[in-house]
Amino acid sequence: VHNVGVIGAGQWASNGLRVIAESARCRLHAVADLDPARLAPVAGRHPGVRTGTDPAVVVDNPDVDLVYVATPPATHAALAGRALAAGKSVLVEKPFTTDPADAAVLVALADEQRRTLMVGHTFLYSPPVLAVADLISSGALGDVFYVDAQRVNLGRYQDSGVLWDLAPHDVAILLHWLGEAPTSVSATGRSFVSAGREDVAFLTLHFPGGALAQLHLSWLSPTRLRRTTVSGARRMVVYDDTAGPEAVKVYDHGVHRSPAPESFGEAQLTYRTGDIRIPRLPAVEPLKAMWEHFVDCVETGATPRSCGRQGLVTVQVLAAAERALRTGRREPVAYPPLSVPTARMEVSA
Amino acid sequence: VHNVGVIGAGQWASNGLRVIAESARCRLHAVADLDPARLAPVAGRHPGVRTGTDPAVVVDNPDVDLVYVATPPATHAALAGRALAAGKSVLVEKPFTTDPADAAVLVALADEQRRTLMVGHTFLYSPPVLAVADLISSGALGDVFYVDAQRVNLGRYQDSGVLWDLAPHDVAILLHWLGEAPTSVSATGRSFVSAGREDVAFLTLHFPGGALAQLHLSWLSPTRLRRTTVSGARRMVVYDDTAGPEAVKVYDHGVHRSPAPESFGEAQLTYRTGDIRIPRLPAVEPLKAMWEHFVDCVETGATPRSCGRQGLVTVQVLAAAERALRTGRREPVAYPPLSVPTARMEVSA
Amino acid sequence: VHNVGVIGAGQWASNGLRVIAESARCRLHAVADLDPARLAPVAGRHPGVRTGTDPAVVVDNPDVDLVYVATPPATHAALAGRALAAGKSVLVEKPFTTDPADAAVLVALADEQRRTLMVGHTFLYSPPVLAVADLISSGALGDVFYVDAQRVNLGRYQDSGVLWDLAPHDVAILLHWLGEAPTSVSATGRSFVSAGREDVAFLTLHFPGGALAQLHLSWLSPTRLRRTTVSGARRMVVYDDTAGPEAVKVYDHGVHRSPAPESFGEAQLTYRTGDIRIPRLPAVEPLKAMWEHFVDCVETGATPRSCGRQGLVTVQVLAAAERALRTGRREPVAYPPLSVPTARMEVSA
Amino acid sequence: VHNVGVIGAGQWASNGLRVIAESARCRLHAVADLDPARLAPVAGRHPGVRTGTDPAVVVDNPDVDLVYVATPPATHAALAGRALAAGKSVLVEKPFTTDPADAAVLVALADEQRRTLMVGHTFLYSPPVLAVADLISSGALGDVFYVDAQRVNLGRYQDSGVLWDLAPHDVAILLHWLGEAPTSVSATGRSFVSAGREDVAFLTLHFPGGALAQLHLSWLSPTRLRRTTVSGARRMVVYDDTAGPEAVKVYDHGVHRSPAPESFGEAQLTYRTGDIRIPRLPAVEPLKAMWEHFVDCVETGATPRSCGRQGLVTVQVLAAAERALRTGRREPVAYPPLSVPTARMEVSA
Repeated sequence: VHNVGVIGAGQWASNGLRVIAESARCRLHAVADLDPARLAPVAGRHPGVRTGTDPAVVVDNPDVDLVYVATPPATHAALAGRALAAGKSVLVEKPFTTDPADAAVLVALADEQRRTLMVGHTFLYSPPVLAVADLISSGALGDVFYVDAQRVNLGRYQDSGVLWDLAPHDVAILLHWLGEAPTSVSATGRSFVSAGREDVAFLTLHFPGGALAQLHLSWLSPTRLRRTTVSGARRMVVYDDTAGPEAVKVYDHGVHRSPAPESFGEAQLTYRTGDIRIPRLPAVEPLKAMWEHFVDCVETGATPRSCGRQGLVTVQVLAAAERALRTGRREPVAYPPLSVPTARMEVSA
Repeated sequence: VHNVGVIGAGQWASNGLRVIAESARCRLHAVADLDPARLAPVAGRHPGVRTGTDPAVVVDNPDVDLVYVATPPATHAALAGRALAAGKSVLVEKPFTTDPADAAVLVALADEQRRTLMVGHTFLYSPPVLAVADLISSGALGDVFYVDAQRVNLGRYQDSGVLWDLAPHDVAILLHWLGEAPTSVSATGRSFVSAGREDVAFLTLHFPGGALAQLHLSWLSPTRLRRTTVSGARRMVVYDDTAGPEAVKVYDHGVHRSPAPESFGEAQLTYRTGDIRIPRLPAVEPLKAMWEHFVDCVETGATPRSCGRQGLVTVQVLAAAERALRTGRREPVAYPPLSVPTARMEVSA
Repeated sequence: VHNVGVIGAGQWASNGLRVIAESARCRLHAVADLDPARLAPVAGRHPGVRTGTDPAVVVDNPDVDLVYVATPPATHAALAGRALAAGKSVLVEKPFTTDPADAAVLVALADEQRRTLMVGHTFLYSPPVLAVADLISSGALGDVFYVDAQRVNLGRYQDSGVLWDLAPHDVAILLHWLGEAPTSVSATGRSFVSAGREDVAFLTLHFPGGALAQLHLSWLSPTRLRRTTVSGARRMVVYDDTAGPEAVKVYDHGVHRSPAPESFGEAQLTYRTGDIRIPRLPAVEPLKAMWEHFVDCVETGATPRSCGRQGLVTVQVLAAAERALRTGRREPVAYPPLSVPTARMEVSA
Repeated sequence: VHNVGVIGAGQWASNGLRVIAESARCRLHAVADLDPARLAPVAGRHPGVRTGTDPAVVVDNPDVDLVYVATPPATHAALAGRALAAGKSVLVEKPFTTDPADAAVLVALADEQRRTLMVGHTFLYSPPVLAVADLISSGALGDVFYVDAQRVNLGRYQDSGVLWDLAPHDVAILLHWLGEAPTSVSATGRSFVSAGREDVAFLTLHFPGGALAQLHLSWLSPTRLRRTTVSGARRMVVYDDTAGPEAVKVYDHGVHRSPAPESFGEAQLTYRTGDIRIPRLPAVEPLKAMWEHFVDCVETGATPRSCGRQGLVTVQVLAAAERALRTGRREPVAYPPLSVPTARMEVSA
């Protein structure tokens, strides 16, 4: 049984606390939060847990071997760094860090310490996202032409701007699906009501294999949409995360390109429509699956699906998008160059 | 009663022919098409109509006073120009022309000849588009933050690339809704299956009043979407052209920005959700309404809602988008400068 | 080429007229209607066709061999009878007749004259209805437990009450799908706004093979629903006629009944959910397919899918439902007994 | 602060236990269940609570003043009776009892003891149901013509047959909406897979004010539907409990009946369609609202919205439906006559 320490006891952490407490292989051992008012209900709900306003109650605690960092993003790097340095395995909430350089340091530190470092990209443990990943990796979709993702709603969930609030999900999903990192990013955004930070942004990601991805991010949309289209050469998919058991629709549609008979010099295109299939999805709670995957990786030494390197690349993409928002130009992802080798990123697909 | 001549008797023209033939104020007088095989069924369905493979049967016909040009886009400028020069009033199908310079010439020619020149932007005569226009111009939506339009489907309708095939609709709608032309355009596109022309494109239009518009155009989408969100400061609208009588949904949602109590230096935001209203839309066939509006304008001398100047600006926006696709940069709309004054465009709103 | 005569030139007939005029094997020869105002546009649109206010222009016309009866239901029996007696093959619009006895006479007459008699149950030629028929007859659904059909909207289309207006469609579909006639019918209805005739009715049909069918018929529903669920032992289907290309959804869901392990004396039930499949449907206009099927049957002597006998049984079911509405009791379908043998009804399935 | 005792610690009770434990005015004091395995987690989650396998731990406990009965339906009467006899106020889960006579005894007992008796009809505390109730009682819908409710899904939740499993919800809702009890019930059902109990049933309820209600109940439907149409003389409503914040759609549609101009002897009908409005619903957890309403009624002596008398009538309607299923006839609701006066039922509307 692993002793788990949690840093951060706010709204989001409450789901993690529940999942950790219910895990058969784990015991919730210590919880730290700057705000004592947040610790009181935790102590009430989990009798016997140690609590404290100093993160030392977790990171300097020799009984704790797994640490879950669920604090505001700007503090992730320092807290996860302390925990890794103290020899713990660490699961950090998304966004991993707010600066790629910090993410690189954490990756290097985990390597050095030979500990598991994982990022809380919950969607990589969600049945519809995995179903689409299978469709892509099995070749059922053929080459992926483009991915068009809408993640829009009314209201913001974080202080950091719509980019860092909403895009981490889609970027992590894209890295997993396509198995490669985009080389450059274009972006347009606007601060309509939130001075100093975008509440609407449109991103275009350019992938080396030829695929294009378009992300719509908004806090000013009247309807909540979580709708992603994957257009492939052989089949196409619509993944609607609000559609419950019918979240994934596979269209047996495609385009055939046959050499034109004569001198026209261009191919003839035939658009084909076929059946639509809605695969049955397993009933799995992504957060629970993610936590168990973390424990598995700690125990076996395997690289997590949402490993630190993938988290690093995600932050690099977000940082490039941030630059693109400022400059209005298409920005390369791999800038500035980092000391950690990410050229051949180990993204599981 | 007006005598109408039609140039072009292909697929699309057939709807126009029906509408003209049913108009109480018009008589279908002459139809021209390069392909005699297309003229035969027209002659059969409309006994007494003159047909011919030379456009002269229409443009040089002294009995004809109204001309409808429904030929491939590249021929619009020459044919509409001949008709205007011959003193006819002209309705040209969209896209108006393939080059802004040609559009400017047509506008100047119509002014000179004091004839009505109108572009077939049918959506400006469609009940849901007009309902949204009313919501904007009445102030019900407050300032428009952004417009996000998806116009995607499987298959192409034209030879010219997805930009010129699909974007004219949205650009004309935006000009009408916002009452101003965008100053610059960013665009990303890709030719996945159609060598040499984009089958997917994402456009961002920057409006001088601060609004942003995002267009998704695709021939490679498994589902047909015609879905536009208008996000305003006071209310928000979703216009779904595939939803029949429920095409327009008005959300009484908004964001309040109140000065923060203290030193934080930033406003406090309150997101508000209210009722949703689906206004009843009149049962009007847009094409019929457009044609009758054309005849009204011819008779009264009024400027058409989709006048030549609006058509010219639409073509300028498309040309800027085309440049942006090539350069990867944000491109100004008003380039090259045209001799026709469009600085204060007369776009009806 | 067959010469076709049409009786009735009202709203509904106009679709039939178009389809007949476009049929390569037919020539529209004569049209009769009591109202000369309806004949004028027909004559205009179909130059050369004979028109008249006396049905004799069709039924006593030796050149006509096929007759389409599209008059108000109460006149079907007399007009179709005259046409059959004159040796024509006849397609009668639905409802076939308003009295089962009349339907029986027509069936007997057609047998006697060795002519084709067919009823205009258009839905039996519509791709989604045929797709469901295939799923049932192939055994893919297993035994059919029940069918639940909603056919509701705002407004009435006919003078005769919601039962005779809407139920003919569902009854004909059920006869075709299940390949057997119901033995009895229960019904509840109410005249809320239309004095003397139901504007809402709920019907339950009891089939000899054990299946149950429930029909909702309403002219007082705010939304237009055409939604039918077929619940089978192996799979289930939802057929939504308003869903266009996605009209048929096949659920690989079912219930397993395994003998209980011990003394409980009852089976154990396991509910299974699987994939959902939306089969691609051919793009066929049902009315056109129906007319061509009629001509095929005339030429080959084959029994039409919607033959007179099926029409007779449909009318018997409607008459039983009408009695059930009056008595409040479950009423047998086969009452009164008819001289035409329908015991072993030849319903195609 | 009230001390609360709970009888039954199964699946359903767990929601009640959470709500009671979180109520500021209540303390969870004792929990009884026949199965000790169910008590263990309760004791773990609620330290200090008394547990026992004998209901006496609750009903004979002098410290307990409120009792929540969440056991299998057949035991409700005996357990609620004991609690009332011991002077407790009692909230009984639905279905209230399995026999109307038992329900009448409980109502009489509560009157005698001057204690609050309430039935757990949670839907009467759900925002969309209350919004529709307001629309009816305010006259916005005009006279209610009919209510058509679909409550269908795959799988059963109870041992008792689809009628007692699903219909209590709709019957309680109808009593609340219409403010009157139906006088008779017709029903058809079938046991397709569950020997000895219906897994599909169709009910028709006849109300004295002229309204009709139709219920579809099924455990054999591939899709989960919770869709109710209320057709009124002035407006119409669709209440879809699966549609979240858009659960209630109010259609400003109606039918006008004007006296016919002349001798036709019948009224002329005009069908009118207007705007659709989706009212914003408050974010309230029905179970929590129900529990707080129970405590309010205990404290003030007010009659609960879902009082024992309403529960009695609900059981009478279900019993009548059960008889109708057996006899195939329309059955009166008020049979057998009960000693408790229910002629002027106090149903709140």
